[in-house]
Amino acid sequence: MAAISAPVVSTKPANAVDPADQIIVPPGSVGIVAPQLIAFDEPLHLSSGQTLPSYELAVETYGTLNAERSNAVLICHALNASHHVAGISASDPKDIGWWDNMVGPGKAVDTDRFFVIGVNNIGSCFGSTGPASINPETGQPWAAAFPMLTVEDWVQAQARLADHFGIHKFAAVMGGSLGGMQALSWAITCPERIAHCIVIASTPRLSAQNIGFNEVARRSIISDPDFHGGNYYAHNTVPRHGLSVARMVGHITYLSDDDMAQKFGRTQRAPADNGEFHYGYDVEFEVESYLRYQGEKFSTYFDANTYLLITRALDYFDPARSHGGDLVRAMQGVAADFLLVSFSTDWRFPPARSREIVRALLKNKRPVTYAEIDAPHGHDAFLLDDVRYHAVIQGYYDRIAAKLGLPERIQTIGVLK
Amino acid sequence: MAAISAPVVSTKPANAVDPADQIIVPPGSVGIVAPQLIAFDEPLHLSSGQTLPSYELAVETYGTLNAERSNAVLICHALNASHHVAGISASDPKDIGWWDNMVGPGKAVDTDRFFVIGVNNIGSCFGSTGPASINPETGQPWAAAFPMLTVEDWVQAQARLADHFGIHKFAAVMGGSLGGMQALSWAITCPERIAHCIVIASTPRLSAQNIGFNEVARRSIISDPDFHGGNYYAHNTVPRHGLSVARMVGHITYLSDDDMAQKFGRTQRAPADNGEFHYGYDVEFEVESYLRYQGEKFSTYFDANTYLLITRALDYFDPARSHGGDLVRAMQGVAADFLLVSFSTDWRFPPARSREIVRALLKNKRPVTYAEIDAPHGHDAFLLDDVRYHAVIQGYYDRIAAKLGLPERIQTIGVLK
Repeated sequence: MAAISAPVVSTKPANAVDPADQIIVPPGSVGIVAPQLIAFDEPLHLSSGQTLPSYELAVETYGTLNAERSNAVLICHALNASHHVAGISASDPKDIGWWDNMVGPGKAVDTDRFFVIGVNNIGSCFGSTGPASINPETGQPWAAAFPMLTVEDWVQAQARLADHFGIHKFAAVMGGSLGGMQALSWAITCPERIAHCIVIASTPRLSAQNIGFNEVARRSIISDPDFHGGNYYAHNTVPRHGLSVARMVGHITYLSDDDMAQKFGRTQRAPADNGEFHYGYDVEFEVESYLRYQGEKFSTYFDANTYLLITRALDYFDPARSHGGDLVRAMQGVAADFLLVSFSTDWRFPPARSREIVRALLKNKRPVTYAEIDAPHGHDAFLLDDVRYHAVIQGYYDRIAAKLGLPERIQTIGVLK
Repeated sequence: MAAISAPVVSTKPANAVDPADQIIVPPGSVGIVAPQLIAFDEPLHLSSGQTLPSYELAVETYGTLNAERSNAVLICHALNASHHVAGISASDPKDIGWWDNMVGPGKAVDTDRFFVIGVNNIGSCFGSTGPASINPETGQPWAAAFPMLTVEDWVQAQARLADHFGIHKFAAVMGGSLGGMQALSWAITCPERIAHCIVIASTPRLSAQNIGFNEVARRSIISDPDFHGGNYYAHNTVPRHGLSVARMVGHITYLSDDDMAQKFGRTQRAPADNGEFHYGYDVEFEVESYLRYQGEKFSTYFDANTYLLITRALDYFDPARSHGGDLVRAMQGVAADFLLVSFSTDWRFPPARSREIVRALLKNKRPVTYAEIDAPHGHDAFLLDDVRYHAVIQGYYDRIAAKLGLPERIQTIGVLK
């Protein structure tokens, strides 16, 4: 069913210098990594009623699957991330994995003990089958015809990936934001296949405000004349302006008000000689420069159809919906232990949203650990290095390792040194 | 210097039915109103260094100026409002003033006792001179050549309007949001001309997050191909898509998360027969429908250049800037008494921003009344009917009236019945 079509991960020892390209691998890094592309020929039946006839998943793995296949950890990504969770990309040494501070030998998710899988979701634009991929039926990019996906669809595809690796039950499925929704969905839809569920900076459903911001982003993209109804590949255009504005508004929601005040405040970018304003619509303030740069950069590498698709999957996620809105009932069959983490200044998915999940678990008498981290960095905090946050994660993985009888932690790198 | 070129306000008695068009004037209304257009020929020297050679202001007034000219109240408007503060527009009976719940006979701002002026600011698009007006030098719309304006420029123009009415000192200058900034600026720049300053849901300066949202709105407008560098009038286009997205993002910031949850939640707009989603990018949720409607409606009547100009004036406002960022020093010369009101769920200009002003006033030993209203409606709360909020305003105006020796309140309409 599944065929491996790309080289597996090549790792280098810590502190090694690659003789060819002089890449310095820092201690705690999983090393230099390259993705696998794994093809699945069995059709995937989707929540929408549509079917994806076949697909490929881009995957990276770190560490070694033990003989019992009990030490596997699946890391699920959020809107704009990928399978490249940790390490240094073989194709671009500047491309460090998006959760490299979390995953590696001796780190919170210790690749000396765990076999960690990063997977790019279907519909994304970093290697797995998505709207920019060729539709085998037409020989053209899927574009607007690519089927709509849900979190549950991604979990289904990830479960097949687990089968491919011969993993019946994950030691943990883990993710932040949209990644946390996937972890939660794993616990609900595949309860027998997940021992621990780690949900960070997430929510059991988007609020009206969350959906509102997503809709702003979508309108911005869709109303860009270069979008061409999603078929911009055929027109050789990219809806860059729309995608850029979408990213700018998204970016604001990832940061806290305080964090933006600290980072940018009202600092002027390049004031006139007398320190005055320029009185125009070019950049006056640092924050404008930063947001424009983030928007423009994003628009050069991210696929607009993927942005639409993933924001819609976020909107749709609501496991309680088929249980009359009752999250307690939705989680009745859950068998995993849970760790939930939220951040005090995250106004996108604030702590109250995580507490809803905690309460539903407690009502179902599930073991749950909950940490509310007082951190200034808003929603983005889940990606950042924070001693207390990483200590919580590390402590939880130490408990998982102890339960599984995995070897003791042999080194401690980074925040807990 | 100033010539009146339109009829003055015509009011009708409460509960009167107009024989011609059957307009019912409810009790507490100032009645049927029409704007005056007042022309100013003296050039206005602006903060930017540019000069506006001449301009017109659209104005409505309610009540009667007393012989001492001591009972005048100036109401300053926010981003998308106008001189039409109260009453029923003579040209469109459905067009009720934006602060009609606040201003009228027997209301919190009692037009039986006070002479109330509503003025449309320069640069706006509701009758006063703005980017869509004809530049006398070219015979074409000003468009992108219209000079950039600041809150201080508006105050300067409003001061000339006061001169026109023979008003040396306002009993009160009052506004919410950007209107509150104008009131604050009056107290700082014209201390001898304002007895009371009423600043509602406002801030002494925009935060980086505030500027960020404004910049998103501006990028959305400017990158719309129909914007044509601001000269869309000549191209017979309107950057409707950009303006619509700008309004959508703005609108989200005016509402609280809780308010949106209450109003829309995750309610589906028109679910498929089985209650399911449609799995597409058309409207799925009520909140999307609402925001799209608000955006599209706005784009049919609001001028894009005005949106840019006013958001920029918001960004620039920072009276402490010329005092090394010290608001206490900036307010040293203030002679007015102050009322400040903020709303608990306003995350655009949260209570902490109002408290900065309160602290600066206290350090300057100015009399200040501050009310923090626990209201669910976010920033928009300043426009809404709320018993406690309106009671605070009414109580404060009663004190102003008592100090001025104005007649007793003769009727009490509305919230305090």
